[in-house]
Amino acid sequence: MNGAELLVKTAVAAGIHVCFANAGTTELPITIAFDSIPGIRPILALFEGVCTGAADGYGRMLDKPAMNLLHLGPGFANGIANLHNARRAHTPILNVIGEHATWHRPADAPLTMDIEALVGTVSGWQRTNKSVESLSRDMADAISATFYGQIASLIVPQNHQWAEHNDDTVSLPGFLFDPVEHDSIEAAAQLLRTGKKAALMIGGRALRTRGLQAAVRIKRATGCDLLTGTFPGYMERGAGLPPVSRIPYFPEQATSMLSQYQGIVLAGIKAPVTFFGYQGIDSQVLTEYQQTVHIGTGRQNIIEVLEGLADALGMLGNSHGREDVVTEPQRPQLPQGALTAEKACLTLAALQPEHAIIVDEGLTSVFSYYSLTAALPPHSLMTIAGGSIGYGMPCAVGAAIACPDRPVINLQADGSAMYTVQALWTEAREGLNVTTLICSNRSYNILKLELQRAGIEPGPKALSLAELRPPVIDWVSIARGFGVPAVSVSTAEGLAHALKKALEEPGPHLIEMVL
Amino acid sequence: MNGAELLVKTAVAAGIHVCFANAGTTELPITIAFDSIPGIRPILALFEGVCTGAADGYGRMLDKPAMNLLHLGPGFANGIANLHNARRAHTPILNVIGEHATWHRPADAPLTMDIEALVGTVSGWQRTNKSVESLSRDMADAISATFYGQIASLIVPQNHQWAEHNDDTVSLPGFLFDPVEHDSIEAAAQLLRTGKKAALMIGGRALRTRGLQAAVRIKRATGCDLLTGTFPGYMERGAGLPPVSRIPYFPEQATSMLSQYQGIVLAGIKAPVTFFGYQGIDSQVLTEYQQTVHIGTGRQNIIEVLEGLADALGMLGNSHGREDVVTEPQRPQLPQGALTAEKACLTLAALQPEHAIIVDEGLTSVFSYYSLTAALPPHSLMTIAGGSIGYGMPCAVGAAIACPDRPVINLQADGSAMYTVQALWTEAREGLNVTTLICSNRSYNILKLELQRAGIEPGPKALSLAELRPPVIDWVSIARGFGVPAVSVSTAEGLAHALKKALEEPGPHLIEMVL
Repeated sequence: MNGAELLVKTAVAAGIHVCFANAGTTELPITIAFDSIPGIRPILALFEGVCTGAADGYGRMLDKPAMNLLHLGPGFANGIANLHNARRAHTPILNVIGEHATWHRPADAPLTMDIEALVGTVSGWQRTNKSVESLSRDMADAISATFYGQIASLIVPQNHQWAEHNDDTVSLPGFLFDPVEHDSIEAAAQLLRTGKKAALMIGGRALRTRGLQAAVRIKRATGCDLLTGTFPGYMERGAGLPPVSRIPYFPEQATSMLSQYQGIVLAGIKAPVTFFGYQGIDSQVLTEYQQTVHIGTGRQNIIEVLEGLADALGMLGNSHGREDVVTEPQRPQLPQGALTAEKACLTLAALQPEHAIIVDEGLTSVFSYYSLTAALPPHSLMTIAGGSIGYGMPCAVGAAIACPDRPVINLQADGSAMYTVQALWTEAREGLNVTTLICSNRSYNILKLELQRAGIEPGPKALSLAELRPPVIDWVSIARGFGVPAVSVSTAEGLAHALKKALEEPGPHLIEMVL
Repeated sequence: MNGAELLVKTAVAAGIHVCFANAGTTELPITIAFDSIPGIRPILALFEGVCTGAADGYGRMLDKPAMNLLHLGPGFANGIANLHNARRAHTPILNVIGEHATWHRPADAPLTMDIEALVGTVSGWQRTNKSVESLSRDMADAISATFYGQIASLIVPQNHQWAEHNDDTVSLPGFLFDPVEHDSIEAAAQLLRTGKKAALMIGGRALRTRGLQAAVRIKRATGCDLLTGTFPGYMERGAGLPPVSRIPYFPEQATSMLSQYQGIVLAGIKAPVTFFGYQGIDSQVLTEYQQTVHIGTGRQNIIEVLEGLADALGMLGNSHGREDVVTEPQRPQLPQGALTAEKACLTLAALQPEHAIIVDEGLTSVFSYYSLTAALPPHSLMTIAGGSIGYGMPCAVGAAIACPDRPVINLQADGSAMYTVQALWTEAREGLNVTTLICSNRSYNILKLELQRAGIEPGPKALSLAELRPPVIDWVSIARGFGVPAVSVSTAEGLAHALKKALEEPGPHLIEMVL
């Protein structure tokens, strides 16, 4: 068995079944091993940003890693932006990056780069494999590292992939949460018991159903509000689950929302900071006058932490009732007339199927979506955790691979969609149930909003850098070129009709919503 | 005057007139300064890989830098692959990367990354600006660094862009070549005088007309052959200029070509190495039995070096005649019948206009192009210097911006084209005279060739990672979606007709050549 086969065998033994790939000559042994060692489904993407974004979507859905197979430094570099988002979302991802043969590296051949420096910018764990003998152990260590919600990157020289190894025993990953720390839980309980106006801000795995169930017990015991960050990586929500408020994007609104609290418990999430630095506004949204307690680190089980806190507070009883959780799903009515951003969100809220996966990169067009949909049937939501645009379409690919029986709806800003538009081809090739709703406002609208906030009237050159026309991008033509059926709509009725049709038919669809 | 205005003013004073941009909130002051300080034309691209590839094409054509304006770490990361190609091509490029305000950076806001680590992987010069007072000096130093044929990257915190500075005097870049080293020139002259079978291998600026004129003097004085690397960044060629042989891509052919030489003079280029490491084949194509002399470093003027060598050899007289340079252009006849890769190259060779700029990323489809076109009317050629695919379309954009009066023809492999397909939109927006010839073989054909070479029959999974169908990419539809007129052809006659039409009409065109 050669190194590449040992690598694949180790991945399969650890439960990795999907590899998003755009491989080159230095990864050929691994692509060949996918045939000789069964168990991994390789999925081709036409650009590495699609691979890494898909692995992010997959990992967010299943809370386990997919593998990426990437070609040397340039291939990895193309995937960095979406790995950055994944890092901020605490997504488990396993990157395998091919490298020149160890004896060839000193030649500084054209494709040679400092891969380790690139890898270091987004990885929680990284290693360059030193020999075929340690390859299975390296893979197992990498996979173990992902279980803590981080990116692990293993660089594998090509000669180690080809090298024969007479021992085909594979190493298995190990994984153990750090013990829960009771002192901080007690401090959090004390803060919430004071009767001061308080919030419990949750992140990471706490936004999955079991974490939310613990959070709602805490809320009922103490009357605290439930919050999360501006861009949660993954959350489960809808009827039966407690509503969780997101901290607004712009600092004025964020401060206004948070200033009402005298105390905040931060569970598995950092204290909120502004997205950008604005002159005269503090980076920290919370002030020194607000009491904060942190519970749960990245290596603790945040579910267990929250359940511990709920248990500690249990004696207070359910003094705050159950009116906070809607049990019967509620939907808005379908809107009518010329399409607007608001009506697009209303239409989706009116039609969104149960168990839908919403990949939200709608940015300024979908400000109203979140509040309109808290009481919909249960669904999953992903947002742009790291703020690096171009995550939506690839993430939708990964979500659809992870959960083939659930409809994926990608609410997608047009400018951001352009970053990784090649994802449409993988949707077509794999026949994925993804409906892409392009929010076609034909501008980088966030830049216009930032200029407005700063009171600046941009000149023609500055404006040209925020305008996506001319020429108008013909999304229908582009989508069809990639093999995805597409239509363009400009009325609420047109959107409702097209969305129903897209959700009924298997395979990918794209709907351009002209806003 | 604020820092952003000072930055733009410094760039303009140094002769920078074009900025390829995809800016965000942290670069807004600079985008605004483009209006208040005249002299720079900002050009929007829908993905940073297009910006950096365009700056590469621009810099290769004019041998002076364009500026890139990139958004934080993720924006820079998206541009790394094409900066890697530019680094290998020794292209002068100035990157300006926005960074969070210095006081905001410690907050570790979502978009925060280790930009310096990313920048270090491709830059010959890099700095993070420390204050508005040093901003003009930093810009001037960065621009100076580019003149040596390298990438300079300046990271500029947003607060330094907004900061007012009462001194609006700008620093100017300085630039001085290192003195030519006469000992190595004498050693090269001695090698070439021995009468041994010898070659002069040239790179960098030596491949421009004046360098080639010096090279042909050396050839005529000594009978040496003229060679260059496999993927020269930029070269001028055609009737009136000496033919220069490129070292073949595969190691067997490279070794076979070079083994005939007893001595090699390497002028402004490293000794050739194989593109990848192959078991049983040395990385170095030259052996220890072949005498080599290096002349010209990156900081010397290689033209002056070659002219010095030619002068030193001048006394030998023109013993080797002038039959090496074709003075009257020669073209092949137009081929007929079903299109093949060979016929596509023949058709282009038969029709290529004088002074055309050829951006070659045709890879396995255009092996024959180079030898077919040595005696064509004068033209420029660029190739994939760093081996990172996706350089062609962006490079064509930059070449067309640099030389609006010359037709740009982008000979473009389909798989590679997909990496940076967004470049088509900038072609349409700017009305660029670029004709893209898509070599549509619907596969990553190089992988299939590598498998053949290794004697491996790939299984279905490995094969699926080398096949770009299903679904077949509809290039006509995609190009039209971006605003570029397009046709698909499958015969030589069809290609000739479409190519003539595209070259006659202003603005961009795309022709899918189904091979």
